[in-house]
Parts: sequence; C-alpha cells; structure tokens
Amino acid sequence: MAMDGYRGFLGLLVSGLLVGFLSVIFTLVWVLHYREGLGWDGTALEFNWHPVLVVTGFVFIQGIAIIVYRLPWTWKCSKFLMKSIHAGLNTVAAILAIISLVAVFDYHNARSIPNMYSLHSWIGLIAVILYMLQLLLGFLIFLLPWAPPSLRALVMPIHVYSGLLIFGTVIATALMGVTEKLIFALKDPAYHSFPPEGVFTNTLGLLILLFGALIFWIVTRPQWKRPNEPNSILQPNGGNKEEVEGSMAINTGNVDKSDSELNSEAAAGKRNFTLDEAGQRSTM
Amino acid sequence: MAMDGYRGFLGLLVSGLLVGFLSVIFTLVWVLHYREGLGWDGTALEFNWHPVLVVTGFVFIQGIAIIVYRLPWTWKCSKFLMKSIHAGLNTVAAILAIISLVAVFDYHNARSIPNMYSLHSWIGLIAVILYMLQLLLGFLIFLLPWAPPSLRALVMPIHVYSGLLIFGTVIATALMGVTEKLIFALKDPAYHSFPPEGVFTNTLGLLILLFGALIFWIVTRPQWKRPNEPNSILQPNGGNKEEVEGSMAINTGNVDKSDSELNSEAAAGKRNFTLDEAGQRSTM
Repeated sequence: MAMDGYRGFLGLLVSGLLVGFLSVIFTLVWVLHYREGLGWDGTALEFNWHPVLVVTGFVFIQGIAIIVYRLPWTWKCSKFLMKSIHAGLNTVAAILAIISLVAVFDYHNARSIPNMYSLHSWIGLIAVILYMLQLLLGFLIFLLPWAPPSLRALVMPIHVYSGLLIFGTVIATALMGVTEKLIFALKDPAYHSFPPEGVFTNTLGLLILLFGALIFWIVTRPQWKRPNEPNSILQPNGGNKEEVEGSMAINTGNVDKSDSELNSEAAAGKRNFTLDEAGQRSTM
Repeated sequence: MAMDGYRGFLGLLVSGLLVGFLSVIFTLVWVLHYREGLGWDGTALEFNWHPVLVVTGFVFIQGIAIIVYRLPWTWKCSKFLMKSIHAGLNTVAAILAIISLVAVFDYHNARSIPNMYSLHSWIGLIAVILYMLQLLLGFLIFLLPWAPPSLRALVMPIHVYSGLLIFGTVIATALMGVTEKLIFALKDPAYHSFPPEGVFTNTLGLLILLFGALIFWIVTRPQWKRPNEPNSILQPNGGNKEEVEGSMAINTGNVDKSDSELNSEAAAGKRNFTLDEAGQRSTM
C-alpha cells in the first residue's frame, strides 16, 4: 500500500473508531442521564440494556469485525489468526445482541407489554437469526479446515454480501428503535416540542448512520484489501487452498481455473471477470 | 454472459420487480383501505401521498435506476442512452421525493404539527438533499461531455458508493416512517394488540427491505456488469474516454495505465488492482 493510501486509510479508520466510540458514549449518556439508568430488575432500567448492548455489540463491534482484514499491520499475520479475530469479534457481538434481546423480552414480560408486534422487532429478530446463521456457516465453512476450496469459493460472495446486508439492516433497525423509544418515552415535553433528549438522541441516530457509512466505505475500497498470499507458508490451511478461496470469491463456473488464467482472459480484452473484486473477494 | 448466469439474472430481476411492485401495491392498499385515502387538502389524505410517493419514487424507481446498466439486452445500446435513462429515472424519483416532502410539510403546517423534530425527518431530509446533489454532480460530470476522463475516474467510485449509501439510507428512513406512522395512527386497537393494519404494514416494511436486498445483490454481482466496450463506435463521448472512465473507476494514481497493463500486473501475482471491480467500476 502506498504511503498516500495508508494515510487515507488511517484517517478513515480513526474517524470510524471515533464515531463508533461516540455512538456508544451517546447511548450511555442517553440511558444514564436522560433515562432511568441501568439495572436488571424487569423495570425500564433493564430495558435500557437493550440500546446499550445493541450499539456496543451489534453496531460497533460488528463494524470493527467487518473491517478487521483491512488493517495493513495485520497483513503479515496468518489468515487463520485474522479469521479467528473476525469470528471472535462477531461472536462477542452476537452474545451481546442476544443479551439485549433477553433484556427487552424480560422487560416486556414483567410489564405485560406484548412482544414482537412492531416492525422494529420483526426486522431486529430476523437480523439476529441471520447473524447467528452467518456466524455458524462462517465457522463451519471458513474457519474449520475441512470445507473444500470449491465450497469456500461458492459461499464467499454470499458470506460477504449477507454480512454487509445484515450490518446495514442492524443499523436500520437501531434507527427504528430510537424512533420507537423516543415516541413512547417523550410525553411531557413531547418529542415534537424538541426537548433536549429528543435532539440528543436524534444525534445518536446520525452518529450510528455515519458509523455505518464509514465502515461501508472502508470495506468496499479494493486498494485496502488484504493482499493475496499465493506462496505464504504462514497459512495453516495450505497456501493453495487459501489462494483459491481468497481470489475465487465469485462463482462463475470457472472455479478450477487459476487466478492468473482468469486475469489473462481479462487482459486479453474479454469481460473483466477477475475473481477478486471489491465487495466480492474474501474478507477472510 | 453464459446462459446460466443470464437465467439467474432474469430470476432475480423478476423477483426484484415483483417485490418492488408489491411494495407499491401494499402502500396503496395501506393508505386507501386502512387509512383515509388520498387527497390534497391539508388533511391526512394529503399526508398519505408521502408514503405512496416515497415507496413509488424514492424506493422502487431509484432501485430500478441503480440496476439499469445490468440489463443484458441494453448492452448493445449506447452508453449515452443508458446514462440518460439512469439520470432520467433518478430525476423522476427525485421529483416524487420532493412532492412527498411537500405533502408532509403541508399536512404538518395545516394541522400545526411541528416539522423536522424526528430522527426520521432528519435522516430523510439529509437523504433527499444528498440525492439531489448526487443527481446534479452525476449530470455535470458523467452525462455532459466536458468532464475530463481523469475527473470521471476520480469521482466514479464515490458516485457508486454514495448512490448505494443513499439508497440504503432511504430504505432505513422508510422503515422508520412506517414505525412512526403505525405508532401514531394505531390507537384503538393499539399497534401492540396486533391489529390487521399493523401486521399488514409491518409486512410492507419487510417487502421494502427485501427489495433493497435484491437490488443490492444484483448490483454487486461483477458478472452482471455491463461489459467494457474499448472499441465501440457507438459511444458519443469517444471510445477512449469511455474506456478510461468505465474501467478506471478507482483512483490509484495509475489513471494513465491501460486496462491490460493493470491486469497483467495482477496476473503477475502482485496485488489484484484491476480498476474494474464490483461496486467500483462505472455504472455509467
């Protein structure tokens, strides 16, 4: 990576971390200062764990997990180590997401509020289920050493796509949650009279959206992808396998062809079918 | 495009059109059957134009505009024609989005409801402003013939990124809008008692999300991109310019290099820096 690109990457990474961190801080200030605080007693204090855990785990940590392969100083680390970190961060995020669901169901049940009636709850539950499925499939296919390269090649573009889709859906769901909570909670003064809590928590919503936009930019820049390591001996699963997996992310029915063959085709002036494209290639 | 890929594309396109069309129908059923209907008189009938125009224009038509370059039967059409269709559809969507804003401001003012207090309104207005900016810049830089290829190459990845980001943000905002409206409108029976309107409109929310997911999948499959036309004489802006613009979507500081040179580099085992990558390359 050229020095220029490196500086650009660092600037965006720091911005992303800052905005993500600010989102967590804003959520804490919201529940501790504007709302009733935190607790685990079936009251609103328990509900308040819901936004705190969602923004910390399902938004911030998931966002970091998505870009972890993009950090240039990790490119000398083994692919297996980076996969483990990616899987580990996503596991932490999933656990926090599940606890956040327990908090809100517990609160609803204690207060006899029905569960699962709102669009927020429908989409949120779908997102959590898809996230756990994604985690399980990712573990089985990419982290465990047994999946054949052709299967990895087949699944990788779906893994990348559904990962980004789930992340975007989680952010949309968080914004719906903020909307719901502010309408329910702000009665006197009402949300529409611009109380400080309304303006503050709207700003939290903007921060969450901005965090998503930064992660989305970082992860879709092809020049910031982890380079291929065709001859690396660091890779525990075998260099050749990894090469196929890393570069053959797109299933064009050519999964047997080597990278260079495919690039030669492209160079020969046919469709540019390089199997190593932005948003397509392995984030593994 | 191989027959297999073509069939897969058609299946997804038809699914996308179907889900998008269903979203519009559901929105119409919502306002005509469950709500008060449509009108332009400062009452709820005028407000109801807001969801109808947003889902029709800002969601459905914008979604189609995003994938218009992916339609294989248009690949023999000139780039200029396709750009014009892309710009035209986005212009129609922008006009409908603006009328949808007029409807809601008009309604608020007639009923003395404050404007711009909710997170939905903040993010929605930002999305409309960014969309119009995107439209203006796209027109100046890509449709008019005067922008130099280097500028087009520089702006293209930003254009693609911000286009998809705005589309995703619009969908998130629509889901927040559904949430808001159902909480405000469903009082007796309340939203939490699962009235038919609540379940129906939640389903509309799911359809909108599914439409976004399908468009996002179609537009990020590199094998469904419009092929490069290096020697095409159909291109009114000059084949060479277009080639640079179409393939040099990523600014790596190598804007003078030819496509084949860069692919040779990739084939030589360096970083795969092909300047024609998914989500990066021109959708022009």
